[in-house]
Amino acid sequence: MKFTKMHGCGNDYVYVNCFVEQVADAPYLSRVVSDRHFGIGSDGLILIKPSEKADFTMDMYNADGSNSQMCGNGIRCVAKYVYDYGLTDKKNITVESGGSVKYLDLNVTDGKVTEVTVNMGTPITKPGLIPVISDKKQVIAEPLLIDGNTYEITCVSMGNPHAVVFVEDTKAVEIEKIGPLFEHNEIFPERTNTEFIHVIDRKTIDMRVWERGSGETLACGTGACASVYACILNGYTEDTVTVRLLGGELKIQYDREKHTIFMTGPAVTVFDGELNVN
Amino acid sequence: MKFTKMHGCGNDYVYVNCFVEQVADAPYLSRVVSDRHFGIGSDGLILIKPSEKADFTMDMYNADGSNSQMCGNGIRCVAKYVYDYGLTDKKNITVESGGSVKYLDLNVTDGKVTEVTVNMGTPITKPGLIPVISDKKQVIAEPLLIDGNTYEITCVSMGNPHAVVFVEDTKAVEIEKIGPLFEHNEIFPERTNTEFIHVIDRKTIDMRVWERGSGETLACGTGACASVYACILNGYTEDTVTVRLLGGELKIQYDREKHTIFMTGPAVTVFDGELNVN
Repeated sequence: MKFTKMHGCGNDYVYVNCFVEQVADAPYLSRVVSDRHFGIGSDGLILIKPSEKADFTMDMYNADGSNSQMCGNGIRCVAKYVYDYGLTDKKNITVESGGSVKYLDLNVTDGKVTEVTVNMGTPITKPGLIPVISDKKQVIAEPLLIDGNTYEITCVSMGNPHAVVFVEDTKAVEIEKIGPLFEHNEIFPERTNTEFIHVIDRKTIDMRVWERGSGETLACGTGACASVYACILNGYTEDTVTVRLLGGELKIQYDREKHTIFMTGPAVTVFDGELNVN
Repeated sequence: MKFTKMHGCGNDYVYVNCFVEQVADAPYLSRVVSDRHFGIGSDGLILIKPSEKADFTMDMYNADGSNSQMCGNGIRCVAKYVYDYGLTDKKNITVESGGSVKYLDLNVTDGKVTEVTVNMGTPITKPGLIPVISDKKQVIAEPLLIDGNTYEITCVSMGNPHAVVFVEDTKAVEIEKIGPLFEHNEIFPERTNTEFIHVIDRKTIDMRVWERGSGETLACGTGACASVYACILNGYTEDTVTVRLLGGELKIQYDREKHTIFMTGPAVTVFDGELNVN
């Protein structure tokens, strides 16, 4: 089976072109290929397939074989794959992921995609829709007691729940200790992702992220979007912000007229391979 | 650059055929390819090259770019590579590694190597040669105080130092806590690898290993050899023993007449790839 290993900000997947390859048992294959010592090694498997309502479908599996809805770093690589490997010659494409359609703009240099802008949709702040338990209309800089310390959290959904916390120094955050305490706090009925943000200036923030079910990761696209929107709600930044993550940088732009967030970031092909599938 | 990802008991390297490919800066390349999110992902890089005193040379680099002398799991994969890819049709080959020559026997099924037996040389028990500081002729079941507990250690060198400790249950060993305390104990002037062994029966042992400079690993070929020799010195096993490691099984055979240890284990090709080297 031919595959391509790609990453966006260090979030790496094995990509398979299912216009050519056939995959019988994707959850099993995802577990096999994701193993970092016995397999190819990745955060999961992404199958590129036809779609009835978009140009392509992104069918995504986590390393444990579970199905995933959407990944901002993954979908940028899908865009790079379909253009670089000649499945399309369009520079504006649509990709179906988890039932919804995403719009992507491809930045092409010397015939190859280097960056992709994704319409990430509308940020949601209504507590019941995030969901977070609160009697406020929005959760902006509200106190939350974690392990004896009071943190101010701002809650945003980008289709998944995020709690954004502003700190003086992201490196000093004991994320392995407090990340799980945010994730499982009783005010988050569906658990939460948590972003620890240091505002560098009005156009730049540092971010570390604790993803629910995964722990600390190198990058989280929806987390970067939620964090910038939280910055704007708190008056800390302008509407276009560079987010510096452990795995790279994302540019997040909030379009006030459309009330929509756009994410621009890199997509990198690491290598092409052929797996001996038995 | 074409490469092949292979593993022996989960100890995985990127293998490059330097009869065809040219590598300018191997330490740099090893760091790049070994990165598990931005690169191919491996424990390091192994270059297969010509040799003046053996059939092939194994030139080995760790993930941090440092040069390595020898790896029992790696050298079995070198044997599989050179046979499977037609660099030799011999089933008994010699490989130069770290200046010394190793003898390997290839077990071939349907034209492919499945298992390889490596002559791992002579076990050394003289304390000054291991090295371990002791006034005994051999360190066999000698007490060592670690973190308030007394452990009985048996010390063996297979070209690198090993301290073998017998335990009731390998799973219960707090290896992250006590591994470093063995490694850096003052009686080991060059630090030590430490094996925690549960003797299942006279032909089978369970093993977990703390490798100096690396921490816990899935498998360690020299550690398996040292551990079986320690079992024999203590009268616990016969001369042929199956060692069950986290990453797989190795068969270790002590040949009394030759005073030599042979290791037999698997070698697995995971995939062939082509890296975009810029």
